[in-house]
Amino acid sequence: MSRELRIGLLGCGTVGGGVLHLLKAQADALEAHVGARLDVARVLVRDASKSRPVAADRLTTDPAAVLEDEKIDLFVEVVGGETAAKGFIEQALHAGKPVVTANKLVLAKHGASLFGLAREKGVDLAFEAAIGGGIPIVRTLRDAMVSDRVVSLMGILNGTSNYVLTRMLDDGIDMAEAVRAAQDKGFAEADPSADLGGHDAAHKLGLLARLAFGVDLPVPTVEGIDAIEAVDHRFAARFGYCVKPLAIGRVSERGVELRVHPALVPNRSVLANVNGELNAVWFEGEGLGPCLVYGRGAGALPTAVSVVADIADVARALVAGVGGLSTTGTRAAQATADARAVPPGEVQTRYYVRFTVDDQPGVMATLAGALGARGVSIEQLVQDGRPSEGPATVVLLTHRAREADLRAALDDLNASEVRVKPPCVLRIEDPSGGGA
Amino acid sequence: MSRELRIGLLGCGTVGGGVLHLLKAQADALEAHVGARLDVARVLVRDASKSRPVAADRLTTDPAAVLEDEKIDLFVEVVGGETAAKGFIEQALHAGKPVVTANKLVLAKHGASLFGLAREKGVDLAFEAAIGGGIPIVRTLRDAMVSDRVVSLMGILNGTSNYVLTRMLDDGIDMAEAVRAAQDKGFAEADPSADLGGHDAAHKLGLLARLAFGVDLPVPTVEGIDAIEAVDHRFAARFGYCVKPLAIGRVSERGVELRVHPALVPNRSVLANVNGELNAVWFEGEGLGPCLVYGRGAGALPTAVSVVADIADVARALVAGVGGLSTTGTRAAQATADARAVPPGEVQTRYYVRFTVDDQPGVMATLAGALGARGVSIEQLVQDGRPSEGPATVVLLTHRAREADLRAALDDLNASEVRVKPPCVLRIEDPSGGGA
Repeated sequence: MSRELRIGLLGCGTVGGGVLHLLKAQADALEAHVGARLDVARVLVRDASKSRPVAADRLTTDPAAVLEDEKIDLFVEVVGGETAAKGFIEQALHAGKPVVTANKLVLAKHGASLFGLAREKGVDLAFEAAIGGGIPIVRTLRDAMVSDRVVSLMGILNGTSNYVLTRMLDDGIDMAEAVRAAQDKGFAEADPSADLGGHDAAHKLGLLARLAFGVDLPVPTVEGIDAIEAVDHRFAARFGYCVKPLAIGRVSERGVELRVHPALVPNRSVLANVNGELNAVWFEGEGLGPCLVYGRGAGALPTAVSVVADIADVARALVAGVGGLSTTGTRAAQATADARAVPPGEVQTRYYVRFTVDDQPGVMATLAGALGARGVSIEQLVQDGRPSEGPATVVLLTHRAREADLRAALDDLNASEVRVKPPCVLRIEDPSGGGA
Repeated sequence: MSRELRIGLLGCGTVGGGVLHLLKAQADALEAHVGARLDVARVLVRDASKSRPVAADRLTTDPAAVLEDEKIDLFVEVVGGETAAKGFIEQALHAGKPVVTANKLVLAKHGASLFGLAREKGVDLAFEAAIGGGIPIVRTLRDAMVSDRVVSLMGILNGTSNYVLTRMLDDGIDMAEAVRAAQDKGFAEADPSADLGGHDAAHKLGLLARLAFGVDLPVPTVEGIDAIEAVDHRFAARFGYCVKPLAIGRVSERGVELRVHPALVPNRSVLANVNGELNAVWFEGEGLGPCLVYGRGAGALPTAVSVVADIADVARALVAGVGGLSTTGTRAAQATADARAVPPGEVQTRYYVRFTVDDQPGVMATLAGALGARGVSIEQLVQDGRPSEGPATVVLLTHRAREADLRAALDDLNASEVRVKPPCVLRIEDPSGGGA
C-alpha cells in the first residue's frame, strides 16, 4: 500500500477545486479503494497567487510544466473549452498517460481521434463527468451492461432546458420569464442558446450513442425548445402529457436514429417527473430491460465526485498494470461510423400539432383531409375558442406516422388558405417500461 | 489475451441458465473487457440429464465436484435459498476463491461473517444482483460514490408490493384482487407474505445500509402493505400523493434510521412514477446531490445481466492480480455494528391518519384535541360522508411529528369513545431533489 500515483491536474476552477477538495478529504478511503496513495503533483491554474488546498510550489500557469513532467502518472483535464483542452488531452495521451476529462465538447467533436489515440497508446480515457456531471451513466453502460445490448435510450440531458420547461408548466409563465429565472438561479448562461437550442444535449447524445451502440455518428435532428408556448403545456396536460427536452437514440434493422428535440411524454412515465434542473438517462437493455439513472447534470461538486470516481478507476487499473482496458475492451472505444443513420424523414413516431386557424367553415375538414391524404391518421382532436370569435386553436394528436408524411401534409396545408401561422409540431414519445 | 479463467457455476435454474447464455453469447466482448477467456468449467445442477449450453461432462449434481475443484478461479452462487447456498459461499471463500452471488437472504442474514471471511482471505464477494436484480445500484454506491458520502436513501425495493399498490390505484381494485393479478402475471409467489410483509425489502435495505452507510444493523421497523385500502389511494390522490412501498435509510447526528413501510410520496416526485413491478433506489450524496437508479428488481435475464457484470469485474481483478479490493477497500466490507440505531419512536416525519368515526357531535374536536395534547399539529383535514348518516371517514395530514407522540395520541383516542376501528396510519415521505 506504499505506492504513490502522481496526478497532473489541468484546470482549477470550480470543478478542479472540487476535485482537489475531495482528493484531500477522502485520501484514506481512496487509498484503500485504489491500492495506492493519490498525490496531486502539479496543478495548472490561471492565477498562481490564489490560495488552493495544495502546496504553492505545485501550482503553475505553464501547461508544459504539467504536461511534460514525466513523473505524472495520470492527467485530469477540467479546463473546459475546446482548443486548449483538446491539445492537453492529446499531448497527455501521446506521452502514453491516461486522461480523465469532463469535457463533452472536445469528446463530441474529436472523440474519434482521441479515443483512437488512447487505444493506440493503450491508455485509459475516462469521461464519466462529460455526460450529465452527477449521473453515473458512463460506468452503468460500460460495466453493468457488459454482457447486454442497449436497444434504445431517451435522456433529459440539458438542465437549463428542463428547468425552463418545468417553470413554464409549474408557474404558467412564458419562456422569456422562465429563462430569466434560470439565469437568476445560475442554471442558464448569459447566452443560453447552446443549451436551449439543443446543441449541448446533442454533444452528450453523440457520446451516449458511442457508449450504448458503439457508433460514431452525427446527430441529424437537433431542435431547441424555443417554439414551445405556455399554451402547449396546457394542451399537453389535457391529454395526460408533459413537455420535456429529450435526446433519443434507437437501433433497429432500419439503422441508428439520433435526435434531440422537445417532446410530449406521458405524465405517468418516470421521465415526466424528472423536473427542474435534474437530468436523467432512460435506456432499455435487451436482457436488463428498462433502466434509468437520474441526478444533477451539472454543478461543481456533482461533477467533481464523478471526476474522482474516474480517477479512482484509472488509478486502480494503473496499480494493477492493466491500464487501457477501457479503451480497448469497450463499445465506446471501438465505436464505428460504419452504421446506417436513419434519415429524419424516415423516423416514425406520434405527433402533437397545434394549429391557429381562421374562423371559417370547413377548417376541421381541411386539416383532417390534408393529413389523411398523406396517410397520417388523427387519434384525438380538440379545439379551443369559438369559430365565430376570430382565430381558434386546434390541437391534434396523430397515430404513429412517418415524419416525411406529416411534413408533406403540413406543406399541403401551408399552400391552402386555412393557415394563420405555421403550426407548432411536437413529437410524442413513450419510454416503455413505465410499469403496469 | 490467451489466459483463461475457470468458473464454477452453482445452480442452473432460470438465473443460472441466463448466466450461461450470456457468457456464451458475449464470450468475445467479455474476453476483450476482462483480458481473459471465461470458461464455465463446472455446473452444479439438480438434473444432469437436462440439456444446457455446456458440455454434459461439466454438469454435476454433486456440490463437492464443483467446490473442491482446485482449478476453478471463481464461483457463482445462484442456487438461492439459505442454508445450502450459505455453505457453498463459505466453502468457496475458505478455499480463497472469489464469489459472485445474487442471494440477498444469505447476505442479509450472514453478511457480517461472510464479508469478514472474504476480507480475511483477500477475495472478492460481489452481489450486484442481490439488491434489485436489474438495478446497477451496488456498483453505483461503490464506484461512483467512492469519494462521497450518502446521507439518505429511499427505495422501492419490492416489485410485488409495488405492482399490487399500482394496480389498486390504477384499476380501483382491492388488495386481494391486485394480489391475484400479481400472481397471474408471475410477479407474486403463491405465498406472497415475505414480499407483501416487507421482509424481502428489509433484507435489501440491510444490504444497502451496509453499502451506503457502512453499518451492519437490523431494520427495526418492518411494516407490510396489508393495511392499505382502496380508499387510501383515493385520499392520497386528493392531497397530491400516491402510496408506495418504501425502504428508507438515513444518517444524522441522532444515529442511523432504517425502516420499511408503505408511505405517501408526492405525485411530482420521481419515485411516484416508479410503477408496476419496477424498482428504484433514490439516494442523496453529500457532494453528488440526488441520484436515482431504476429498473427491474427481478427476472431471470435482468438478474443474469447483473451477475455477469459482477463476474466480469471479479475476473478483471483476478487477471490484474488485485482480487479482494472490493472487500477491503469499501464501506460495505468494513461495515460496523458500532453505530446508534434511532429507536422507532424517535423517528420524525409527517403522517397521514385515516379514522372511521361514529356519527356523534364533537368528533373532530376530540381528534384534534388528542393530537394537539401530544404536540402533533394538523396540516390538512378532510371528512367524507355526513355525520348524520352513520360512520364517517376523517383523514388528516400532520405536520412533522415524533412517532412516539403520534402513537401516544392514538392510544389516548383509543381509550376515548369516538373510535369505531383502529385508524390507518401512513407516513408521508418526500425525497428532496425532486426538482424545481
